[in-house]
Amino acid sequence: MMTSMSLLQQLRMQYQPILPRALKDLNKLIAVRGKVAASLNSGLAPYFPKTMGQPALSFSAGTNIQHAPKRVGVVLSGGQAAGGHNVIAGLYDALKKLNAESQLFGFLDGPKGIIENKQIEITGAKLERYRNQGGFDLIGSGRTKIETAEQFAAAETAMRKLNLDGLVIIGGDDSNTNAALLAEYFLNKGCKTAVVGAPKTIDADLKNEDIEISFGFDSATKTYSEIIGNISRDTLSAKKYYYFIKLMGRSASHITLECALQTHPNLALIGEEVAFQRKTLISVIQDICDLVCARAAQGKDYGVILIPEGIIEFIPEFRLLIEELNYLLASNPPHSNMMELAAFCEERLSSDALSCFQAIPRDIQAQLLIDRDPHGNVQVSKIDTERLFLEMTRNELTKRKKAGAYMGKFMAQAHFCGYEGRSCLPSNFDAQYCYALGHVAALLVNAGATGYMSCVRNLISPVEEWQISGSNLAGMMTLEKRHGKEKPVIAKALVDLKGPSFALFSAQRQQWALGDDYCCPGPIQFFGPAALTEAIPITLIGFVA
Amino acid sequence: MMTSMSLLQQLRMQYQPILPRALKDLNKLIAVRGKVAASLNSGLAPYFPKTMGQPALSFSAGTNIQHAPKRVGVVLSGGQAAGGHNVIAGLYDALKKLNAESQLFGFLDGPKGIIENKQIEITGAKLERYRNQGGFDLIGSGRTKIETAEQFAAAETAMRKLNLDGLVIIGGDDSNTNAALLAEYFLNKGCKTAVVGAPKTIDADLKNEDIEISFGFDSATKTYSEIIGNISRDTLSAKKYYYFIKLMGRSASHITLECALQTHPNLALIGEEVAFQRKTLISVIQDICDLVCARAAQGKDYGVILIPEGIIEFIPEFRLLIEELNYLLASNPPHSNMMELAAFCEERLSSDALSCFQAIPRDIQAQLLIDRDPHGNVQVSKIDTERLFLEMTRNELTKRKKAGAYMGKFMAQAHFCGYEGRSCLPSNFDAQYCYALGHVAALLVNAGATGYMSCVRNLISPVEEWQISGSNLAGMMTLEKRHGKEKPVIAKALVDLKGPSFALFSAQRQQWALGDDYCCPGPIQFFGPAALTEAIPITLIGFVA
Repeated sequence: MMTSMSLLQQLRMQYQPILPRALKDLNKLIAVRGKVAASLNSGLAPYFPKTMGQPALSFSAGTNIQHAPKRVGVVLSGGQAAGGHNVIAGLYDALKKLNAESQLFGFLDGPKGIIENKQIEITGAKLERYRNQGGFDLIGSGRTKIETAEQFAAAETAMRKLNLDGLVIIGGDDSNTNAALLAEYFLNKGCKTAVVGAPKTIDADLKNEDIEISFGFDSATKTYSEIIGNISRDTLSAKKYYYFIKLMGRSASHITLECALQTHPNLALIGEEVAFQRKTLISVIQDICDLVCARAAQGKDYGVILIPEGIIEFIPEFRLLIEELNYLLASNPPHSNMMELAAFCEERLSSDALSCFQAIPRDIQAQLLIDRDPHGNVQVSKIDTERLFLEMTRNELTKRKKAGAYMGKFMAQAHFCGYEGRSCLPSNFDAQYCYALGHVAALLVNAGATGYMSCVRNLISPVEEWQISGSNLAGMMTLEKRHGKEKPVIAKALVDLKGPSFALFSAQRQQWALGDDYCCPGPIQFFGPAALTEAIPITLIGFVA
Repeated sequence: MMTSMSLLQQLRMQYQPILPRALKDLNKLIAVRGKVAASLNSGLAPYFPKTMGQPALSFSAGTNIQHAPKRVGVVLSGGQAAGGHNVIAGLYDALKKLNAESQLFGFLDGPKGIIENKQIEITGAKLERYRNQGGFDLIGSGRTKIETAEQFAAAETAMRKLNLDGLVIIGGDDSNTNAALLAEYFLNKGCKTAVVGAPKTIDADLKNEDIEISFGFDSATKTYSEIIGNISRDTLSAKKYYYFIKLMGRSASHITLECALQTHPNLALIGEEVAFQRKTLISVIQDICDLVCARAAQGKDYGVILIPEGIIEFIPEFRLLIEELNYLLASNPPHSNMMELAAFCEERLSSDALSCFQAIPRDIQAQLLIDRDPHGNVQVSKIDTERLFLEMTRNELTKRKKAGAYMGKFMAQAHFCGYEGRSCLPSNFDAQYCYALGHVAALLVNAGATGYMSCVRNLISPVEEWQISGSNLAGMMTLEKRHGKEKPVIAKALVDLKGPSFALFSAQRQQWALGDDYCCPGPIQFFGPAALTEAIPITLIGFVA
């Protein structure tokens, strides 16, 4: 069945992303080996004996080259991010430009599709309705990881059966770590498939000197900022509620920082700062209450507070509590009800963890104790952080009111900006960035480069001036202890508390706290002045344009 | 302090709404008395001895007229709706066109501002930054009603002090009822102030043959549909969640119907239909479970379900439960904990109410019993309906799984589309509709017409062809028993189960249920093709254009 498309979807289908000049004459480009990164982590050598120390690749124009047709696979891995379909479209268009006989195959429903060798050929006709559209539904996505020996072998089998010259993995830090390991594995096995990654995650925690930003972040933060701006305007009009708005972003607070710069809330918690200051849960709540009291003193019983999804994991004491609970609950202590389970834990928690636990409202305690994953671990992502902070703020304000330190009236609403930002129609920035990323991935695969990330840089300049390169995946790795074992990982990029974006934020936040400087970015615009349609994230620029 | 404005806000500030041809030569227009509505409710005569049976007013062009300057007040009443600032801008511009010496005063923070005579003069300079912007923050809004004799007298005093020729009340059904009563009161007291209403409410339940739609509905449903479309696309990509999305709209399900037509969810509950079919809570849940099972049989463990905020009040049995609980809890029964309170009620509820109560998960029972308003009543609007339906669906599916009737995997997320739709940047439709409503209000006040609603009709035609009129407020009234006393009210307009919009919905919903025909309207566009920027609600047209 042909699904329905709105008028805007149809118009977007016809949108033609601008290509960087560097990608204009695809058939004249040849890969040029650049420098090898100076500082290599020698501990990684055993994991990447073949791909470690591969030089960066750039492309320079020569004369027209006749390329052989290629057979390439592509897979979407992990959570949705706007622009995924455009990476595929860019990859497809570039492959066809390099040789019209080339073929593209899409593995279905994430890495599982590789292991089970479930795929479809992506033809121009199939692709048409997905150009510049949100979601990952052309081929689906999934969170399966290729980890076991059997899974690696199954992946190799799939590559050989399809006789693939290349495999493009569109994913975040974990998926690209997987890409690096697969590249190494295929080389070892004499399998010709070149593995190339593309940087996807709305969280923007996949970022380094070669990756200026991951795709999806711009569209997600614009969608969230539209919502936050609308809610702020509502707040200012009704003057009766505090809004506790939780934003996606578990490992880093980039989304919250970007949305704060876009919308000027009264308070935005940045996890990295909370961790740096070694704040306790109580002290974070005290900060919120101080804001509420200061505003109440000005007659303002309303406001907007942004909270990153991962905030509690940045609070050392809360992290400790979760670790201890995971340990205690792993033994599956006997209990007939929640109260008994809570009592069992309270007797055994360290004093820091205990004071944190006791500060939490009963129903959130219950969530911590009861909602556990199949491994028995507390499900941090399921904790209603926005409600936790709201209720604790309410309790603390009640105390202050009794003590005569607060005269205001506290009414609050909780909101979560989440899934609606992942699969929206990609902004022009994401549409073009992804289309270019797909092209670069095609060039890398075409050059037989394996273990590389498709990189497009100089993003603060006009699209025409964007630069392209391939960056060695192994060079992005570091060793981390996970579940007691050292593993190569791509370290998550956190908010840089000394960087220009955070400086921009901290220079203004005092004014936002007490004034009502709410800004409404409004919905993403696809038509109209370029300053509007081509806007890029403030945190990418580092200053307000 | 000048607050920040985004680039889009600045561009919208400069947007010039198109005016209907009927409003082009304002100074040539004279009010023409039309027909008196044929069927008048004689029971209302005692409430509106002076304004009852006033004829409809239209305007026809003659020669230029020199009007005297007018002094006019304006107030925003109740919840925010996009376009409120444009009613004020239209009113201001029209008053100034009629006579440049005219003055406009804005009462602050709703009807309370009238009672307390708190207002500001609205000047062109002050208004500038609010043109085509969301929110009600130029003068604020509030929910105070003018009810007591003292309040009516205070309102009259304010009118006299400011020497107002007119008062424009921008509000929903209750506020316009208030406007009608004020008009009558001022006439009785020999106070010259003409009272005119403007139809505001995102819920669209203020609608009759003279009011085709209330303003704010279009912008709100477009904003919600953007979010629902995005979430649907995410659902289709990840294929692992059911989304239970609650939408604003307590007394009527127009918002849900419009959003369903825009986005094609798998299921959309329409309160009016549930009431018509006299469904029980359990049977509604069974319907949802039937859908989940039918989709699971096709291998689909995901979907999107829309639920209007007011759904539970449309379920007769739930209404009964709430009434009985209100009665039982009014006595403030002694109890030491929730369990005792629940037991107290369970012993006394009628069997229908009891079975409904017992079907509800414990924590929602607690919400019903504990979260009561100052009058001791259950706070229906605080019930997490989306979570109630989600949890009950989960429980029922668990039973079906045990019985072997369901093989799928049920994971679900709850979402509420609420406050972010009320104060967004108004769509072009709302911006222009409101600007015209403001103009008509100015004409009515200028003509000394009191007890009238500003009406702009023929909205499915191009703006130039919109028609304008004044409609007698008393003629929109009906008598209703509220708290045991008969009162004149404007009856809420419900979804017409025999109307073209519902027919359009019911003709397609079977296909939406099992297919994945999700449609993404995307964000509101202010630039680009007119088919996009000038789009109006589907439920207003009655067919898909």
